[in-house]
Amino acid sequence: MATPTAVPGPVLAVSAHAADFVWRAGGALALSASRGRQVHVLCLTFGEKGESQGLWRQPEMTLDRVKEVRREEASRAAKVLGADVEFLDVGDYPLRPTDALYDSVTATIRRLNPAVILTHPRVDPYNFDHALTHEIVLRARMVAQAAGHDPTSRPIGAPQVLQFEPHQPEQCGFVPNLLLDITAVFDRKAEAMRIMGAQSHLVAYYTDLATRRGVQAVRNGGSRSITHAEAFQRVFPTVGGELR
Amino acid sequence: MATPTAVPGPVLAVSAHAADFVWRAGGALALSASRGRQVHVLCLTFGEKGESQGLWRQPEMTLDRVKEVRREEASRAAKVLGADVEFLDVGDYPLRPTDALYDSVTATIRRLNPAVILTHPRVDPYNFDHALTHEIVLRARMVAQAAGHDPTSRPIGAPQVLQFEPHQPEQCGFVPNLLLDITAVFDRKAEAMRIMGAQSHLVAYYTDLATRRGVQAVRNGGSRSITHAEAFQRVFPTVGGELR
Amino acid sequence: MATPTAVPGPVLAVSAHAADFVWRAGGALALSASRGRQVHVLCLTFGEKGESQGLWRQPEMTLDRVKEVRREEASRAAKVLGADVEFLDVGDYPLRPTDALYDSVTATIRRLNPAVILTHPRVDPYNFDHALTHEIVLRARMVAQAAGHDPTSRPIGAPQVLQFEPHQPEQCGFVPNLLLDITAVFDRKAEAMRIMGAQSHLVAYYTDLATRRGVQAVRNGGSRSITHAEAFQRVFPTVGGELR
Amino acid sequence: MATPTAVPGPVLAVSAHAADFVWRAGGALALSASRGRQVHVLCLTFGEKGESQGLWRQPEMTLDRVKEVRREEASRAAKVLGADVEFLDVGDYPLRPTDALYDSVTATIRRLNPAVILTHPRVDPYNFDHALTHEIVLRARMVAQAAGHDPTSRPIGAPQVLQFEPHQPEQCGFVPNLLLDITAVFDRKAEAMRIMGAQSHLVAYYTDLATRRGVQAVRNGGSRSITHAEAFQRVFPTVGGELR
Amino acid sequence: MATPTAVPGPVLAVSAHAADFVWRAGGALALSASRGRQVHVLCLTFGEKGESQGLWRQPEMTLDRVKEVRREEASRAAKVLGADVEFLDVGDYPLRPTDALYDSVTATIRRLNPAVILTHPRVDPYNFDHALTHEIVLRARMVAQAAGHDPTSRPIGAPQVLQFEPHQPEQCGFVPNLLLDITAVFDRKAEAMRIMGAQSHLVAYYTDLATRRGVQAVRNGGSRSITHAEAFQRVFPTVGGELR
Amino acid sequence: MATPTAVPGPVLAVSAHAADFVWRAGGALALSASRGRQVHVLCLTFGEKGESQGLWRQPEMTLDRVKEVRREEASRAAKVLGADVEFLDVGDYPLRPTDALYDSVTATIRRLNPAVILTHPRVDPYNFDHALTHEIVLRARMVAQAAGHDPTSRPIGAPQVLQFEPHQPEQCGFVPNLLLDITAVFDRKAEAMRIMGAQSHLVAYYTDLATRRGVQAVRNGGSRSITHAEAFQRVFPTVGGELR
Repeated sequence: MATPTAVPGPVLAVSAHAADFVWRAGGALALSASRGRQVHVLCLTFGEKGESQGLWRQPEMTLDRVKEVRREEASRAAKVLGADVEFLDVGDYPLRPTDALYDSVTATIRRLNPAVILTHPRVDPYNFDHALTHEIVLRARMVAQAAGHDPTSRPIGAPQVLQFEPHQPEQCGFVPNLLLDITAVFDRKAEAMRIMGAQSHLVAYYTDLATRRGVQAVRNGGSRSITHAEAFQRVFPTVGGELR
Repeated sequence: MATPTAVPGPVLAVSAHAADFVWRAGGALALSASRGRQVHVLCLTFGEKGESQGLWRQPEMTLDRVKEVRREEASRAAKVLGADVEFLDVGDYPLRPTDALYDSVTATIRRLNPAVILTHPRVDPYNFDHALTHEIVLRARMVAQAAGHDPTSRPIGAPQVLQFEPHQPEQCGFVPNLLLDITAVFDRKAEAMRIMGAQSHLVAYYTDLATRRGVQAVRNGGSRSITHAEAFQRVFPTVGGELR
Repeated sequence: MATPTAVPGPVLAVSAHAADFVWRAGGALALSASRGRQVHVLCLTFGEKGESQGLWRQPEMTLDRVKEVRREEASRAAKVLGADVEFLDVGDYPLRPTDALYDSVTATIRRLNPAVILTHPRVDPYNFDHALTHEIVLRARMVAQAAGHDPTSRPIGAPQVLQFEPHQPEQCGFVPNLLLDITAVFDRKAEAMRIMGAQSHLVAYYTDLATRRGVQAVRNGGSRSITHAEAFQRVFPTVGGELR
Repeated sequence: MATPTAVPGPVLAVSAHAADFVWRAGGALALSASRGRQVHVLCLTFGEKGESQGLWRQPEMTLDRVKEVRREEASRAAKVLGADVEFLDVGDYPLRPTDALYDSVTATIRRLNPAVILTHPRVDPYNFDHALTHEIVLRARMVAQAAGHDPTSRPIGAPQVLQFEPHQPEQCGFVPNLLLDITAVFDRKAEAMRIMGAQSHLVAYYTDLATRRGVQAVRNGGSRSITHAEAFQRVFPTVGGELR
Repeated sequence: MATPTAVPGPVLAVSAHAADFVWRAGGALALSASRGRQVHVLCLTFGEKGESQGLWRQPEMTLDRVKEVRREEASRAAKVLGADVEFLDVGDYPLRPTDALYDSVTATIRRLNPAVILTHPRVDPYNFDHALTHEIVLRARMVAQAAGHDPTSRPIGAPQVLQFEPHQPEQCGFVPNLLLDITAVFDRKAEAMRIMGAQSHLVAYYTDLATRRGVQAVRNGGSRSITHAEAFQRVFPTVGGELR
Repeated sequence: MATPTAVPGPVLAVSAHAADFVWRAGGALALSASRGRQVHVLCLTFGEKGESQGLWRQPEMTLDRVKEVRREEASRAAKVLGADVEFLDVGDYPLRPTDALYDSVTATIRRLNPAVILTHPRVDPYNFDHALTHEIVLRARMVAQAAGHDPTSRPIGAPQVLQFEPHQPEQCGFVPNLLLDITAVFDRKAEAMRIMGAQSHLVAYYTDLATRRGVQAVRNGGSRSITHAEAFQRVFPTVGGELR
């Protein structure tokens, strides 16, 4: 971090459900990919039960069919953003903290060796799948750092963890400390959002949110050219050589 | 911020007492100066009553003499760090929030137009001069931004405010979110500290603290070359184009 | 909520142990029942190990006998309050978060479709059964809302969750934001409390507490006719058309 | 409160600057007025220095002229909302906590005897005029309650204080606990907003915000007919006879 | 503290209004006095405007007469508790933070050199006189510690500050961390309480509170002989040689 | 507690990994033992995977060998401190919350009947083994208090739980409220630290920390003879008869 190379290390987004990474971090992922960083998305579930209301309104829908549609949409969205995507398909609503799930997340973290991890915030009284995903990521990160864990792979360093914005930030104790300028890639995020089903009202909702965070970015000293931003809350302090 | 120039804007440190800026932000100031930034220190008081125990133990000491010694020491320390220094001499223990003091701080902020301001944290149950300084700085920053304030000078932008570390951080609710690598300039900070009277135990104390913060910087993903750091807590979110 | 009907929807109280709903929410339940609302109590355990000291002091007591007595008392108390009661008997001290328990609570929530849920607060360093019950309720509520969960029942809306007062509120971070006037039904609560064993000191204790909360209700703008109240802390914002 | 009358008591909004009450509470005020409640707005200042950037960009602008324009606009906006308005003109950026100001606010509170008071939140690191207004209101409310204060007027009861939404809610520790349905009066709020200068981008901004709060209102159990809402955070617990 | 003497140093209670020290710390003061400690009460005001409702209901009451009665009652109550009492009579509702008031409190602290100070908690949204008293005490304590303050008296050490219980503890963020056993002196506190006017309901209220805190004291590991307690929250960490 | 006997009850330290009790509570344990108290250390794991980096750098290291070395070192360190030690060897990174583990900890607590328990703090985003250990201890304490748990042993009272200092206290929300004077036994802690492998830099690190906490102890009113201290945060209020 003190000696930045031309292209910083990989970015990993851990998404409880298949669409979360698009709404909440699509700009961050597209921005990273646009600069040549490797971007990997790990979806613990397809959000098949809890976040696919539109599909369930269709006649004769089945769980497998919902998963199939969600996998296809999320894969296309990830591609638009410039990211790889991996699905663990462990079942949502509720997500369950099994040893196998911890092991999978740990293995992905070790394999990717990310410079930064994006995931859900620590608290969400509306959505325990999100809060549990946070805990799984933090715990897996710790295991991935351990010298004595899995001699077939190497311990990772200390990647920053950025929490992405929940639907009702104040109720989750979410306080942004990074307003990320996504102006240059917002069209890609918009395209990815449009892929996620026919939920046009959500596209409008998250476009408005990006505008609001963009206004705040300018108010907090950002360039006046910023029109869209995403908000994140870091888990760990930043380390660096610049006063800001 | 989104379009960094070769040398970023001025750094302003507002110090309740004459020595605070040395112990708490000496590394940050020296680092900034070493890169060609303008660095300005504004001391509201000399700390003549509350932070000059050593001098008061000398026989026949007077308030004026204490102030004189403190001014001289702080001026030399600032010079070693590469900073200008300005003294308001409004009286410490207690510092009093007069209109004139607010106006002075506002005027300095407008004149300097800093890119970043360093000052004391918001809460300190041990030291209300420190907490009041925080409030004065934040309030003066707001006034300095106002379009209708003082037509003879120009409104400032939105400089970040970095709170520096209090003596007992946990009791002040201080949670560092920037660990600044001061390895390259620690010798200058050490020299500045030695100038502040004969308080050799404080030099050891703050050297140990810098070492501890340095260890934490490495643990939080900083380069292994970091041996000394200073901790800061930002008041406002950072804005930028990098995930970190 | 914006279009209130003559009688609002069902009230569900989820109680970690068989007596909690009486001490902590007996007034709320009696009040709701007195207005014709359906009131349902779900006891996860009988509190047979952890909250039956009096019974364990009796000679030759067995776990089954304790459960039997507690079931009988709690059933009578619920009847006095005007509530139905259901016992899951999953074992206390410690309560264990099994999939089966989550499923049971989810099923009850779906079946009842409550307008409001009462349960323990999120944090209690003295009593992890209480804190776990909170988590189970919130998680089950989320699953019960999912479109893709259990096609044999219908997704619920978004019932408010009211946390009831723990024994040592300040240590649990409990901050009441609803002081409920239970003056009109306090005699029923008192009767229900008397049923819960011979613990006369607890009846006095919770009578005093209701008086204290009543005094506070008046101090916060309630009618001077309030003599007894119960305190609750909402998990979610209220929604409505009135400024209050 | 436990015995509601046909029309509840007066609503008082205390606004640091002349436009705050429009952006932040215009819906609440219009809603109250539409139901026949008396609605009174107390503007401590015109926001002439700090919140009139547009006017200051005009040539040959003077402080008096800014005040005049702001008074005129705010008066028209209040009228559209159905409110009376009163200006103290004590000077903004910075607002100063003089005894005279405390006395004025106390006198207004005693005279109006409001059932509810709306004002700024307790903390705002961006805007100390707002935070100070909060403190002044709470302190004046306390004095207005005192039996021994000013024998020429009568002590008030205990009105709820609703904090209105700051520009950057998370940075101010603002956590909404009332989402007020303003759907029925949003056109009036929009009209009032349009009156406040030519700041069309702010009208769009606050329209989006009302939409977002409206979506959240539905998500928190409000009627699906809600399209616009305002968020508030109560200072004191609610008292009542309903579980919600 | 590490080397306790037979009788520890003086106890100072700083009370915003004349009766606060009786209701909130009467047990602590009586206990200290009963062990031979010097106990001094400093009342900033008589609570003549804000806490003398009973007197103001009497015909032809004047401010001077209220003060006189309150002085007389508080003096008798202090005597029963074994304390000296000093009145500053600076006016309540609102208390005003003048330089003279700071100086008086500082002078008393220097003169008494207390081992422990009792006063109101830091936050009270119902009562800003209480919160301001807290701030005055902490600031005065800091000045009293300064080597360069007032050469005619000696700097004090670092007395612990114990915040006493506000009327609505949860709303004030009050979290007790000392439950003081006042069983042995509760009769004296009761007698002192009875002296404070004819407010018999308050005597019952605070007797119930002492009982409740006593129950909690036992629950937190105190002796089963404890029947009455007072709750306090320390501002500073304790220092000592015992694990507890 | 109100009636202290010559030697207070046993001290139990529950350590997630084999070395934690040395670095974080070695002084507290040695101090207790030096006064004749029984001191028992319960290590849930050897820290074999996550906290044995030095050993894993050695060639041909195996998990069993790491455990063996750690057991031997921790046993010797405990002996130096005057403590018994017990290893559960349930596996670290991640520690897993099995029923068997809860039962073991509960059984140890019942058997020992400690007067005070030391363990990790509630939150640690860097180390979920530590946070989980906290939860296990609190939950096991609750079960150990239950009248109906395990008729072959007796319910315990209400021992205080002291959280020991994490590596990055501010990031864990750790706020010390006990600064324990360990000056008299620091040489023993130093010796125990030296036993824990060849990690000389950690010995220096924790010696510096003890010095810093010692300085703070004096600043908070402790005797000037204090040179070394350890910081703890209590979970529960203290109960007692002394104002401090």
